[in-house]
Amino acid sequence: MKKISVLGSTGSIGTQTLDVVAKHAEHFQIEGLAAGNNAGLLLEQVRKFNPRKVSVATREQAERIQTEVPAGTKVYYGDQGLIEIAAGTDADLVVTAVMGSVGLPSTLAAIEAGKTIGLANKETLITAGHIVTALARKKGVSVLPIDSEHSAIFQCLNGERRQDLASITLTASGGSFRDRTREELKDVTVEDALKHPNWSMGAKITIDSATMVNKGLEVIEAHWLFDLPYEKINVLMHPESIIHSFVEFKDTSIIAQLGNPDMRVPIQYALTYPERWESPSKRLSLAEVGKLHFREMDFGRFPCLRAAYDCGKMGGTATTAFNAANEVAVARFLRKEISFLQIEDIIERVLDQHSNIPEPELAEIEACDKLTREIAAKL
Amino acid sequence: MKKISVLGSTGSIGTQTLDVVAKHAEHFQIEGLAAGNNAGLLLEQVRKFNPRKVSVATREQAERIQTEVPAGTKVYYGDQGLIEIAAGTDADLVVTAVMGSVGLPSTLAAIEAGKTIGLANKETLITAGHIVTALARKKGVSVLPIDSEHSAIFQCLNGERRQDLASITLTASGGSFRDRTREELKDVTVEDALKHPNWSMGAKITIDSATMVNKGLEVIEAHWLFDLPYEKINVLMHPESIIHSFVEFKDTSIIAQLGNPDMRVPIQYALTYPERWESPSKRLSLAEVGKLHFREMDFGRFPCLRAAYDCGKMGGTATTAFNAANEVAVARFLRKEISFLQIEDIIERVLDQHSNIPEPELAEIEACDKLTREIAAKL
Repeated sequence: MKKISVLGSTGSIGTQTLDVVAKHAEHFQIEGLAAGNNAGLLLEQVRKFNPRKVSVATREQAERIQTEVPAGTKVYYGDQGLIEIAAGTDADLVVTAVMGSVGLPSTLAAIEAGKTIGLANKETLITAGHIVTALARKKGVSVLPIDSEHSAIFQCLNGERRQDLASITLTASGGSFRDRTREELKDVTVEDALKHPNWSMGAKITIDSATMVNKGLEVIEAHWLFDLPYEKINVLMHPESIIHSFVEFKDTSIIAQLGNPDMRVPIQYALTYPERWESPSKRLSLAEVGKLHFREMDFGRFPCLRAAYDCGKMGGTATTAFNAANEVAVARFLRKEISFLQIEDIIERVLDQHSNIPEPELAEIEACDKLTREIAAKL
Repeated sequence: MKKISVLGSTGSIGTQTLDVVAKHAEHFQIEGLAAGNNAGLLLEQVRKFNPRKVSVATREQAERIQTEVPAGTKVYYGDQGLIEIAAGTDADLVVTAVMGSVGLPSTLAAIEAGKTIGLANKETLITAGHIVTALARKKGVSVLPIDSEHSAIFQCLNGERRQDLASITLTASGGSFRDRTREELKDVTVEDALKHPNWSMGAKITIDSATMVNKGLEVIEAHWLFDLPYEKINVLMHPESIIHSFVEFKDTSIIAQLGNPDMRVPIQYALTYPERWESPSKRLSLAEVGKLHFREMDFGRFPCLRAAYDCGKMGGTATTAFNAANEVAVARFLRKEISFLQIEDIIERVLDQHSNIPEPELAEIEACDKLTREIAAKL
């Protein structure tokens, strides 16, 4: 019986995590669930999975659900509530699927408490990779990736020696505007941008796919997860998203992980690692797919990807600034305040005026995040 | 320092094995080399690698090279010579790259002597899989595949649990007549058949690719190497031969091994396993390749593949008969005695009159081989 807590249980990754848990109910016990504002769905999850502790965003919400949860379930709220779910239960593994920088303190708390991490919160490694990986090493805690690309790399490294690795390659579908030139991007609408060809995802990440910021963030995450220099991390355009990513070894052999796009597979892998269990996901038939396409990534076409590499190599608070500028810019695009190409502009201009702090403390990261958001909101 | 003997050192796999050894000369010591009739090349190899023992096909050849080898090198010949190279040296690993059924007793002798096997002799598992695998298990000896497809599967299984495996898939380029209908195969010439699209190989195996017999033999080998029922072994048409083969796990995840077609990579992997060393082979660029194609294997178009599955499932001497009938038929085709499609005819007719012996002893396998060849020569 594996004991699990889920931070962000009502989001896309959170609900899919609980789908996986429900499919193997005899092998999992849910210890804690933390949600944001979707108290209705959280209550459904509480009734189904019977966690010992739950948390919601605010005190008001906590008071409202208090009467509706079973007697054995304790209710928490806010940042402290999140940390309680992360570190204050008997969970062996904590899935960190909350969105945004709120995920960082709770992930650190879980690592401090010796929990294995199923990592789905991007900001954790983007903004504080040096702190998180150092703490995980110190505590002997495994950080298991849940993103499909990183899970693919992680799977391809199974049974291999670190020193035999030559490079890793993250594949990129190219997003909703893959086949448009920069000229053709000038007047694209929010509605156009939200049509992702392969994965059904939230609005933010769909825009991030179209700008290639998402792949850039994944490159930075890969740097921390696999302790690799940026020179050994490649990105390859692969429209079908069937090869999820691959590893090249010193002997020129490439090991790749493939599958239909279905987040439940990498989620389940993090939950069952090093085992693999049956999955209800659709099996991949390459004969049915018929063809796979690949082409070099065009960094001129996707300047945000180049910016991500630059920030990653710079280190320090640069990746925090990159991420914060992008978040604000995407929100502004989704509100139709700016055009699609202005997302890139804003990121570029924020980075131009960013003063980098190397090896920042948490407080410095938070300050950078806040300042960057203020600047990006006004550009 | 890894000590190695090579059976069949002057053939295609043998010379490539020595290429790999030469590239990492500081890590390998050649203990023994066995060749057939190419004494000239063997002498070159002896001067370069300085083995303690060598063997040639006949006593006459042994006497002829005796005066030309260094004082420390002992010369043997014939079947006993081959066994001396296989089992009578300090080698840790024996590469079995001789062609034909002569490879079987020497491979068994090497296993009996506790040597790790780098397996490139097809007949070993095709004709006596039950004997070879039982002996290897008893002796605790690893049989490492050298064929690119089996090496791919072996690599994909690294670090995975046997019980998590759902199926394996061997890819097939389709050979020189991939895009022809059976009608269009009626009048093909030996010269047409020898044009393999991806791999540069000997005549026999190039014809075997065109008839899909080669893939059928690989299916039978995979059955023994990976201890899998035939229902879990698939074949997929993949013209580019870039994905060398892949494994599907219970969670629907697929792990594949990719690379440019270059036998030195799987050879080196068998020599360095579980490590991977630098290789002079050309690195694979998927962007350069651009597209990969896949389609269902058409068993109606390739009846020999179906016959191989049928023989494999039947077990016993059926696979020996299949292999022997094919060898004779291909030799006759190469001598222009029969047409391309008569290769299939002969195999089918031989199998129709074959009386299967389950779990045959070596003598029974040899008798079946001999009888089948006599029958196939007259059909």
